[in-house]
Amino acid sequence: MTHKHNQVVTLARRPHGKPLREDFQLIPAAIPKPADGELLIQTLYLSVDPGMRGMMEEAKSYSPGFEVGRPLTGRSVGRVVLSHHPDFAVGDFVYERLPWQHYSVSDGSKAKKVDPAVAPLSTYLGVVGVPGFCAYFGLKEIGKPRAGETVVVSGASGAVGMTAAQLAKLESCRVVGIAGSAEKVDYLHDVLGLDAVVDYHAAGDLRAALGKACPDGIDVYFDNVGGDISQAVLTLINHRARIVLCGQTSQYNHPTESGRFAPERLIQKSALMQGFVVYDYADRNDEAVARLSQLIRDGRLRYRENIIEGLENAPQAFIDLFEGKSFGKQLVRLAQITEPHPAPRR
Amino acid sequence: MTHKHNQVVTLARRPHGKPLREDFQLIPAAIPKPADGELLIQTLYLSVDPGMRGMMEEAKSYSPGFEVGRPLTGRSVGRVVLSHHPDFAVGDFVYERLPWQHYSVSDGSKAKKVDPAVAPLSTYLGVVGVPGFCAYFGLKEIGKPRAGETVVVSGASGAVGMTAAQLAKLESCRVVGIAGSAEKVDYLHDVLGLDAVVDYHAAGDLRAALGKACPDGIDVYFDNVGGDISQAVLTLINHRARIVLCGQTSQYNHPTESGRFAPERLIQKSALMQGFVVYDYADRNDEAVARLSQLIRDGRLRYRENIIEGLENAPQAFIDLFEGKSFGKQLVRLAQITEPHPAPRR
Repeated sequence: MTHKHNQVVTLARRPHGKPLREDFQLIPAAIPKPADGELLIQTLYLSVDPGMRGMMEEAKSYSPGFEVGRPLTGRSVGRVVLSHHPDFAVGDFVYERLPWQHYSVSDGSKAKKVDPAVAPLSTYLGVVGVPGFCAYFGLKEIGKPRAGETVVVSGASGAVGMTAAQLAKLESCRVVGIAGSAEKVDYLHDVLGLDAVVDYHAAGDLRAALGKACPDGIDVYFDNVGGDISQAVLTLINHRARIVLCGQTSQYNHPTESGRFAPERLIQKSALMQGFVVYDYADRNDEAVARLSQLIRDGRLRYRENIIEGLENAPQAFIDLFEGKSFGKQLVRLAQITEPHPAPRR
Repeated sequence: MTHKHNQVVTLARRPHGKPLREDFQLIPAAIPKPADGELLIQTLYLSVDPGMRGMMEEAKSYSPGFEVGRPLTGRSVGRVVLSHHPDFAVGDFVYERLPWQHYSVSDGSKAKKVDPAVAPLSTYLGVVGVPGFCAYFGLKEIGKPRAGETVVVSGASGAVGMTAAQLAKLESCRVVGIAGSAEKVDYLHDVLGLDAVVDYHAAGDLRAALGKACPDGIDVYFDNVGGDISQAVLTLINHRARIVLCGQTSQYNHPTESGRFAPERLIQKSALMQGFVVYDYADRNDEAVARLSQLIRDGRLRYRENIIEGLENAPQAFIDLFEGKSFGKQLVRLAQITEPHPAPRR
């Protein structure tokens, strides 16, 4: 399926606190024409990432920010529909950070070919893309879980958390997830096989619930959310615990005091806390793709996607990220195609 | 010099906030008699450590706490004056955690012989003791400074900070100290050869002063104090910075909000923050003693001691730690002896 016209989502104004529909605008645009050495990409999937929230601020984040009145950009998978570039042919599938629109021109320098026979196209934005890389490298290089240790994952129902939790299970750890609804808890426990899952909404005393779920304390904390949840986890860490700082989604809209912590705790427990951005491991992405896609093909790694249809619904998909509604990787599908691969596992 | 009577310093009551003289009591005691297999140690030097403050709280710290009405204990160097133990002879010098009193009985199991020909006796409580070990292992195992990097040390005029700063200089780093008086700044700059020293009392805008002192940002932060000073340092860390959490002296009496920080910063900079307690490296103490004492004998590592005379002044020496008055290692001398070693370098 192709579109006759182009459309683009722009940042209408900078959000204050949680993003609102009025912060975004959908406007018509011309389909751009690739010059010599360029290619035209039709976007098939957009990734909707909480990290984009920081890029909407005036202040500098770790990625370049968005400008008001200009298109949002995000990680995307598309297909080449026109090529004046020697390395790309019509029909190739590519991954690139692109504007939120149907058709984009690329000079190919940052486009990376992806193979639907290795993994479904959508997963290059999820379990075999950046969220998967975060889980893979964060756990392997910082968390370093050993068999028998207790690994706690916050935001366990998100794309990163779900992958990190399963990878820790593959290392024979006791894995405890933290999530925010009965549906998510059931999925993590019954389908993904986590040893225990704490519902932070239903728990009441979160620290007590975590203590019960982690009778031997916590050796690795893979943190996606920060805030009150991390405060509770940090009271239970063991000597030489490793805290993987992957995300702090609870703090992206409204940094709170509960998102701050006292370093004394790390001293008392000789604990390591390390932040990272996935680009630190850019030269090892192929390693992660190979491992993660193999695990998927072997049926040892599951993933879950929440696919919203239509570019016009992309702003709402982004807003929903901060409402605790997202469950698995949040994607927007702009066009449906038939892939040469079995349907994704759920 | 020996004493005819024993005296002991007890914890009269738990301090609230900063410790006061009334929190301590000096009481007479009998000189204990060693049984078979035991030895009698005359304490020569007491170490006065900020970490003792945490042990005065009801709440658990990382060491067992002090009890009201019972003697304080602390790291001490003494000489054996009577021995019914096969491994110790009269005249041996030993290091042990002992009550704050003139004479103590030991079963020898935790007494470690120290050699005044290797390093002056007092330094086994300072630069070749636990503070030196903190500097040595914290820098080597967590900070891992590389030549040309910028290393910032807070509490640079303390025993740990002074040693860490000099060890970083020996690694050919740009070393910037933070201290709290003109006298300390001059010493650190002129005598120890630090590249820059920031006076946090005189600086006004501490962040601006640090920024000027660290034009290439900060790669390693060796933190002894925490609080507002750490807040300023953290704004200047570089990508893949290492933060060595050694102490948080600013927080020991009154934990403050400025002692807490937002983990986002670590994510943005892929930074590592690691706490440690020196006991983690207990099996490698000999390595540290060998290295540090050799550097002292070679004249490549300097140290500074503030020696208070008399057990009765030990409480005040402890109180002074929290007044920013201490400069170098704070010690109390209970008895003067002649050592077979040149006088310590200052």
